[in-house]
Amino acid sequence: MNTPISFPLDPKLDLCLERIVDLPPEKIWKAWTTPSILMEWFCPLPWKTVQCEMDLRPGGKFRTVMNGPEGEVHDVSGCFLEVIQNQRLVWTDAFGPGYRPSKEPNPCINGFFTAAILLEPHETGSLYRAIVIHGSESECEAHKKLGFHEGWGIALDQLVAHMKSL
Amino acid sequence: MNTPISFPLDPKLDLCLERIVDLPPEKIWKAWTTPSILMEWFCPLPWKTVQCEMDLRPGGKFRTVMNGPEGEVHDVSGCFLEVIQNQRLVWTDAFGPGYRPSKEPNPCINGFFTAAILLEPHETGSLYRAIVIHGSESECEAHKKLGFHEGWGIALDQLVAHMKSL
Repeated sequence: MNTPISFPLDPKLDLCLERIVDLPPEKIWKAWTTPSILMEWFCPLPWKTVQCEMDLRPGGKFRTVMNGPEGEVHDVSGCFLEVIQNQRLVWTDAFGPGYRPSKEPNPCINGFFTAAILLEPHETGSLYRAIVIHGSESECEAHKKLGFHEGWGIALDQLVAHMKSL
Repeated sequence: MNTPISFPLDPKLDLCLERIVDLPPEKIWKAWTTPSILMEWFCPLPWKTVQCEMDLRPGGKFRTVMNGPEGEVHDVSGCFLEVIQNQRLVWTDAFGPGYRPSKEPNPCINGFFTAAILLEPHETGSLYRAIVIHGSESECEAHKKLGFHEGWGIALDQLVAHMKSL
């Protein structure tokens, strides 16, 4: 079996949040792959994740339903692409379960994305990288303006705080 | 690790060619995953496959360039999704290499597809299943009218004849 692909970043098409986190990869993995735990931290407050379904294998379903403070409902369905325990989780909204091509582009960015959480052990915990890959500059820009760095950063803060509270 | 997903067929959205082939899974796998061999059988004559690039791992590039008898050029780029030796090869044109969402829908079906070659040992060789998954009935119908069953069937005949000639 060949080694997994790397994710060389294209600064015009990709967004990346990189941080050293003082949790071991195993705890971050658990937070990302346990639906009941993910619901506790996944949305920056005051948004809440009210449903989460995971079939944790390539082609398996990954669905989250998020509610906003004004009654907004974001129901995002996709599928996992790579599931390598404690190392990498890759998924997309370009497919539904079973790799079926999606028909409705993500309304927030008017397109589709692939996301990867990459974890590596680090002397004080983990090197955490969250990468989001787009098909065009306009979709990448839309995602950035939507508050990618702030949103994913706050979610990571919430993840860390929650895992430390357990 | 969970077991790989199954591919339940939706008759309105999916196409399937299923056949017993008198070659062992290993030989069919070799024909599908060796660029120089794939070029010998992949296109129903008089079309020819003139280029083939494979990075045989999830997220890796799969590109074929096919020339038609009237000078047509079909340059199809996608990426692999699952590579399980001698058992299953899954790829899509909804992504370029590295799972980057594609911007140009496949012109033949006005959309994207995911394809899976599934191989199982059989007493007289292999059970061969080629499945193509679409996002809508119109794309599935377009692919069917394009001659999916005939085209993939002839290609399989060519694969078998070529592997037996080696």
